[in-house]
Amino acid sequence: MNHLPRLAHLTTEDAGWGFFLCTYKELRAGRSGSEFAILNLQDASGQTTAKILADVDRLKGEFEGGEFVRVEGRGSLYNGQVQLVLSAIRRVNPDQDRLQGFREDDCILSSPRPIDEMWEELQSRLRSVKNDHLRILLNRVVTDHADQLKLWPAAQTIHHAYRGGFLEHIAKMAEVGALLAKSYDADQDLVLTGVVLHDIGKLQELAYEGGAGSYTRDGNMVGHIALGLMLVRETINGISGFPVELRAQVEHLIASHHGTREYGSPVEPKSIEAFILASVDELDAKINQVRRAINDDPSPDEFTGWHKRLGRVLYKGL
Amino acid sequence: MNHLPRLAHLTTEDAGWGFFLCTYKELRAGRSGSEFAILNLQDASGQTTAKILADVDRLKGEFEGGEFVRVEGRGSLYNGQVQLVLSAIRRVNPDQDRLQGFREDDCILSSPRPIDEMWEELQSRLRSVKNDHLRILLNRVVTDHADQLKLWPAAQTIHHAYRGGFLEHIAKMAEVGALLAKSYDADQDLVLTGVVLHDIGKLQELAYEGGAGSYTRDGNMVGHIALGLMLVRETINGISGFPVELRAQVEHLIASHHGTREYGSPVEPKSIEAFILASVDELDAKINQVRRAINDDPSPDEFTGWHKRLGRVLYKGL
Amino acid sequence: MNHLPRLAHLTTEDAGWGFFLCTYKELRAGRSGSEFAILNLQDASGQTTAKILADVDRLKGEFEGGEFVRVEGRGSLYNGQVQLVLSAIRRVNPDQDRLQGFREDDCILSSPRPIDEMWEELQSRLRSVKNDHLRILLNRVVTDHADQLKLWPAAQTIHHAYRGGFLEHIAKMAEVGALLAKSYDADQDLVLTGVVLHDIGKLQELAYEGGAGSYTRDGNMVGHIALGLMLVRETINGISGFPVELRAQVEHLIASHHGTREYGSPVEPKSIEAFILASVDELDAKINQVRRAINDDPSPDEFTGWHKRLGRVLYKGL
Amino acid sequence: MNHLPRLAHLTTEDAGWGFFLCTYKELRAGRSGSEFAILNLQDASGQTTAKILADVDRLKGEFEGGEFVRVEGRGSLYNGQVQLVLSAIRRVNPDQDRLQGFREDDCILSSPRPIDEMWEELQSRLRSVKNDHLRILLNRVVTDHADQLKLWPAAQTIHHAYRGGFLEHIAKMAEVGALLAKSYDADQDLVLTGVVLHDIGKLQELAYEGGAGSYTRDGNMVGHIALGLMLVRETINGISGFPVELRAQVEHLIASHHGTREYGSPVEPKSIEAFILASVDELDAKINQVRRAINDDPSPDEFTGWHKRLGRVLYKGL
Amino acid sequence: MNHLPRLAHLTTEDAGWGFFLCTYKELRAGRSGSEFAILNLQDASGQTTAKILADVDRLKGEFEGGEFVRVEGRGSLYNGQVQLVLSAIRRVNPDQDRLQGFREDDCILSSPRPIDEMWEELQSRLRSVKNDHLRILLNRVVTDHADQLKLWPAAQTIHHAYRGGFLEHIAKMAEVGALLAKSYDADQDLVLTGVVLHDIGKLQELAYEGGAGSYTRDGNMVGHIALGLMLVRETINGISGFPVELRAQVEHLIASHHGTREYGSPVEPKSIEAFILASVDELDAKINQVRRAINDDPSPDEFTGWHKRLGRVLYKGL
Amino acid sequence: MNHLPRLAHLTTEDAGWGFFLCTYKELRAGRSGSEFAILNLQDASGQTTAKILADVDRLKGEFEGGEFVRVEGRGSLYNGQVQLVLSAIRRVNPDQDRLQGFREDDCILSSPRPIDEMWEELQSRLRSVKNDHLRILLNRVVTDHADQLKLWPAAQTIHHAYRGGFLEHIAKMAEVGALLAKSYDADQDLVLTGVVLHDIGKLQELAYEGGAGSYTRDGNMVGHIALGLMLVRETINGISGFPVELRAQVEHLIASHHGTREYGSPVEPKSIEAFILASVDELDAKINQVRRAINDDPSPDEFTGWHKRLGRVLYKGL
Repeated sequence: MNHLPRLAHLTTEDAGWGFFLCTYKELRAGRSGSEFAILNLQDASGQTTAKILADVDRLKGEFEGGEFVRVEGRGSLYNGQVQLVLSAIRRVNPDQDRLQGFREDDCILSSPRPIDEMWEELQSRLRSVKNDHLRILLNRVVTDHADQLKLWPAAQTIHHAYRGGFLEHIAKMAEVGALLAKSYDADQDLVLTGVVLHDIGKLQELAYEGGAGSYTRDGNMVGHIALGLMLVRETINGISGFPVELRAQVEHLIASHHGTREYGSPVEPKSIEAFILASVDELDAKINQVRRAINDDPSPDEFTGWHKRLGRVLYKGL
Repeated sequence: MNHLPRLAHLTTEDAGWGFFLCTYKELRAGRSGSEFAILNLQDASGQTTAKILADVDRLKGEFEGGEFVRVEGRGSLYNGQVQLVLSAIRRVNPDQDRLQGFREDDCILSSPRPIDEMWEELQSRLRSVKNDHLRILLNRVVTDHADQLKLWPAAQTIHHAYRGGFLEHIAKMAEVGALLAKSYDADQDLVLTGVVLHDIGKLQELAYEGGAGSYTRDGNMVGHIALGLMLVRETINGISGFPVELRAQVEHLIASHHGTREYGSPVEPKSIEAFILASVDELDAKINQVRRAINDDPSPDEFTGWHKRLGRVLYKGL
Repeated sequence: MNHLPRLAHLTTEDAGWGFFLCTYKELRAGRSGSEFAILNLQDASGQTTAKILADVDRLKGEFEGGEFVRVEGRGSLYNGQVQLVLSAIRRVNPDQDRLQGFREDDCILSSPRPIDEMWEELQSRLRSVKNDHLRILLNRVVTDHADQLKLWPAAQTIHHAYRGGFLEHIAKMAEVGALLAKSYDADQDLVLTGVVLHDIGKLQELAYEGGAGSYTRDGNMVGHIALGLMLVRETINGISGFPVELRAQVEHLIASHHGTREYGSPVEPKSIEAFILASVDELDAKINQVRRAINDDPSPDEFTGWHKRLGRVLYKGL
Repeated sequence: MNHLPRLAHLTTEDAGWGFFLCTYKELRAGRSGSEFAILNLQDASGQTTAKILADVDRLKGEFEGGEFVRVEGRGSLYNGQVQLVLSAIRRVNPDQDRLQGFREDDCILSSPRPIDEMWEELQSRLRSVKNDHLRILLNRVVTDHADQLKLWPAAQTIHHAYRGGFLEHIAKMAEVGALLAKSYDADQDLVLTGVVLHDIGKLQELAYEGGAGSYTRDGNMVGHIALGLMLVRETINGISGFPVELRAQVEHLIASHHGTREYGSPVEPKSIEAFILASVDELDAKINQVRRAINDDPSPDEFTGWHKRLGRVLYKGL
Repeated sequence: MNHLPRLAHLTTEDAGWGFFLCTYKELRAGRSGSEFAILNLQDASGQTTAKILADVDRLKGEFEGGEFVRVEGRGSLYNGQVQLVLSAIRRVNPDQDRLQGFREDDCILSSPRPIDEMWEELQSRLRSVKNDHLRILLNRVVTDHADQLKLWPAAQTIHHAYRGGFLEHIAKMAEVGALLAKSYDADQDLVLTGVVLHDIGKLQELAYEGGAGSYTRDGNMVGHIALGLMLVRETINGISGFPVELRAQVEHLIASHHGTREYGSPVEPKSIEAFILASVDELDAKINQVRRAINDDPSPDEFTGWHKRLGRVLYKGL
Repeated sequence: MNHLPRLAHLTTEDAGWGFFLCTYKELRAGRSGSEFAILNLQDASGQTTAKILADVDRLKGEFEGGEFVRVEGRGSLYNGQVQLVLSAIRRVNPDQDRLQGFREDDCILSSPRPIDEMWEELQSRLRSVKNDHLRILLNRVVTDHADQLKLWPAAQTIHHAYRGGFLEHIAKMAEVGALLAKSYDADQDLVLTGVVLHDIGKLQELAYEGGAGSYTRDGNMVGHIALGLMLVRETINGISGFPVELRAQVEHLIASHHGTREYGSPVEPKSIEAFILASVDELDAKINQVRRAINDDPSPDEFTGWHKRLGRVLYKGL
């Protein structure tokens, strides 16, 4: 039997077997009395809906949501989307399946950039910070949260919503932010500080497990901007001699980075650095969405299908 | 010479002398070459614009903005507003002027309710809190900021913008919040906690001196919602055993109390108590504005003049 | 066979028989050529979607939408919602089924509070009105519409959308309104008048039959605010000596109670009483929605699922 | 001495005397100690601000706001607007001044169309109504309010804000509405009914005296849409056999004529006739504003100055 | 076997055969393993969804999307909409099927007005233009695009979305525009020019083939307003002596015809003619939508079902 | 007598003489009967309001708006703004005044960067374009409009509103755009094309003379986005073999560069390059405004005064 391709490249021509992470499983009553199942499967490259339409009674006990699975199936079109229709599924037996090439990392939707490379890039930027207080602050926060920073997505669904997405987002923002800070004669250290800390509250806002993000209690109740501010204030309180003016500038970057109050920022940008940060954050999130939509669109057309969140089709080119 | 009436009751019929706080002083080049001066005067009951049109050269050195002054003048109409046109002004000489009745408290725009009475009312409510963690939290915050809480306005300009306005606002909200919490079977302790703490960041957002409020650096850069959250988090961190679920509920009340993100709340109400708090806060602020506008309107008409912020006239009745 | 639980407590574990009101029935062509049916069933506690997937030809003639039915079936999950899959259904035979416990009132979605209790509460409040003109007005309107007032929902779908919901809404608003009127030194009689009359046009805007509300011609064409104003004007015209100033205040309460023009109020609140009324109305409607969403949410999570109309999840607590 | 031109044609070149209506008078304290006065003067063609800068003490007693006056003065530029600077003013002595050509009608800002002509046109349209119920309704309303209909402005300030403006507005709308109703095969009688009655509540919303409109108590508290609906409902109640379907259609036209809720309509257009009416009303009001702005603009430029309400300049042509 | 009725009149009572255009065909995996097909069928009068639920394997090769087909089937209700369930389908064999009455024109959704009649009406209006430059401009554009003008829809989905819809829209707008221009003493030639040219860019924005419109590259990237402006500028450049003032007026009509920037007009109406054009365009599009919704609504009720785009139900009358 | 400082540094301490451009002159009737004059003066560094309060009769004939003038005066505060109060003014006599240092360029508000330097930078970027079609297009447009490009402001009032502002804006955008294009792997040539051409229609939208910009007829009637598109389309038509796909991409950049329709873009960004261009344009305009506001703010405070257009105060730092 063939090996199924990466999910990002799945077509209705494909049939075969493969290893995936099943992030969601639901049983439904079929109209003819029997059940069927709807799943979400993902690998490092992408994700898809999958269905079990036959032999449900036997297969439904072979796995649960949140487990790695081995499936057999074929691509099928539903409402213009390619899905997998499964003829077999079972949970992975790690010891035995590793022999056939199973690797957990291959089954979790991930950033296209290697995490170690991004991590090294971030460390290098931190070393370049000239302002002692900011360098200490950044190192302390980054060191304290190293494990999460290497795993977390940048958002639950909108952009960079995959393993390492958080790091990918701030790595690119750091690169772009440094260029803009120089062009506009802004404070390089402050812009980098804003880039690294602006979404730091997301480590508390989101829980990330088994390839899927979800809102935490504090995430729902307080939100990542305020969570980030409290985390940073606490860290700054532990750094002796941190100037209050500098603290205000750092906190302003976090508080204002959504650009307007209607997007959830309690205050709007008031410093050159804050204007730059909000602009870089929005552009990077937008471009990630646009690139994803272009890459995920299966049609040979010059434009993607309708992008609901952006409210438009997107230009793919010829 | 007559004594001028309280500013809240000043009419174009009045002429005489009085003691006031001068919160603002500006000299302008008059068209005929000579200067004139524009001032803001206040007493406990209200405030007014005042002008020095004659004898400016001599009078302008007799006082500064921020000082208590003794003036002579008469009421005059300008664009439908009663103002004072001054014929004499000098800074107060406390020792001597006290003999004529000068009292600082009479010259600062203040809440109509005695501050001690409101303070006692608040203390009494704090004693009634059943949840130990919340009672400790509230007592600690209130004790730490007792001096400010007895002086601060509730806002720079919009509502309760006078000495003791902060206390007046939370005292009334505590009364109303207790009634609604009972009616809707909500958690009384949580609603009171939200009432007392929701605007606590304003003690850092605003500076209040000489009868006038102004935004601080942290106020401009971070805003009172986030400042309040950081203050409360720090206090809670110092209370051993404070449950994280309870902390999330308290912080949620502060974070969501403006009701919507476009009004500056980073998250929207999600608990019954948060819905009640946002409703009580808005209603109390609105009613304070409406009452002020009705009381300040000098005309005998059934309606006030156009209220810019509310975008309507208001009904005074016959 | 077991008795099915109240619909508010239905789970996928339940199977058995019960009496319900069928408010909606639709036949659809199944993909395999045979038909299936989709129904809406309700009882006093809640409502659910139900499906007939097998034996449709025989069962579809056994009942119609709008009839009370006896069903057999089991709970089943569909898109995260519990539904009933039916194996038997027939219209109720009142004489015979009463022996097995059928009571019409048990099968109609209803207010959790007994209607007689709420009615008595309302009457008692009416007796307390001091202003003769308002008391006469209220008594006349309430007496004229007593039957409807005891049955009507407060809205078609949004809040208090069940039998007695109208009365429940104004009973609670009257309680809360009285407290606020006292706290804010507003006119108690006027606030109560606003509470009782603000939605009176809904008796003409909605038709309510068989447990379901629908818009009337006048409801679609004129809307409940204007319908209420016309009804009240007509009634006031019949009360000799009703002062025109008082009439304007009463009508203002009805006209402005949605708070802003974009929510359908042709004028915005201009009196203290109108601000109170709009606030109480909005809070009571919101809390009813929140409580419903919390009660209806079947999951053991700390938060409900996404509430579409409110645009957020809601906090249920641990 | 020259006669001043019509105010619509006043320039800085003009000096002389004339009769006007003084609709507003305010005394202000001048900077040099003496007073000056600011007035509003109007004649049939337009209006202007006027100032008394010299000899104020003597002149200020010679007239009051609301009186007809005889003035002497010259045109002067202030902030790009032509104003009158007065050297003399006194109230009109009708008997004597009539000899010099004083006529009250010439001094009140008025529709450019003769009122009798518009009245006759309206009567003729009423006679053409085929539906008996609508014809009776229209005749009754128009007859009952004939005096007001011949005087009233269509709005306080925005459009047709002058004597006879109400009649001019509905006369033109009737003409255009008839054409559109025919083109779109809509009910001619209903469209005319909507045109005549849509703003009928403005006769109660506005008081109009001495050439100036102001909001009444009912206007502020209820608004012209609801006032119009109540008036029409009362009239229909007095017409025996008026069909309820027809009543709903008529009331829908009044209720929805602002087109959207945010413009104050409690319901939005749902019938072809209501869409036509809302479109005709908006276009006629817009064109009146545009024509006024073009006619009032004194510059020789191709475009008018900035039109605040419309938020743009307007094209006058070469 | 019966002949199926026109799709505009299809009910669940109908069964039989007919010729249609199949504009869309999609195969889906059925839950029981077999496939089913979802189609869109149209004729001159309307369109419908159709399904092949049985015998799919044999039928699916008998036709493609974009082909004319002969079908057998019966009306069936799905979610309150009438659909066709097919028992047979094959592509049309033109030679043979013409004998049974097949005509391509009968199978393409089309304007209810004959195209030749609308074309002649347009030509007649063009002949009436008095301004030589405008007449030459209009004739050149209309002649250059005659073929498209006789076929194109006015929009992809919102209004007049069928063959000849473009011509129907401008024919009616020309009629109404002429009436309004006369009533408001506007320039008749300019209004007609605006009517004919305002949407001319849609000939480049949309591709129209096989009864279905779709956005072109230029349509997505530039939009019909700018495309129309470029086309008109190019044409005007080829007309010697075309005055620049007149060019600006013509281009202004095209640029501003959506009325506001949020509806995609880069500038807002500034001339009387532009206000008229925007009003006529909006009203004609709205009335077309309303009439369609009323005609397409199958229920016997006084109101249509909910109209998503307009956000309301619509009044059909008794 | 002292030489007055550059206007950007004028304080109330300054008195002396200087050369300026008078861009505006208005005479007003003073309250005491005599006239006074209000002027706008500018030099390369900034602009100020100036007043002639004494000796007006003699001075008012010595100059006109639009002329270079020699003035004597002193700084004076009015509403918190520093203004010049003049004691002498006359038009410049170039021959004679050049001896005292008069240079026209010093008297016109200008970009802080030398125009020749920015021009050379632009030329160098054009040479680097690899795509032949785009390089030809850019060279043709830039060469054809070289004179204007060296003079024009980027906007009438909002940002870069001074001589050379257009060039300064696109020079900085080209620098930043190149960095972002590289970071995001976008098409460098397209981004540069978008930068150079996005506002090219402003050369037709604005007239710029005597140091002041004003809207042209085409600017008011069509707007710079459509004007730019027409200009570019015409130029591309003259370049043989320019691919239509490339044309669509270029035109898309111009059409979408305001980012949203409500800001006047008829289409929204759909390509990576368009997202980058819109972001760079907005950021550069914002930062120019912020820098100006910070530089122009005369107070020693940490924040500027209220910035009306941005709706906030801005952080200047200590």
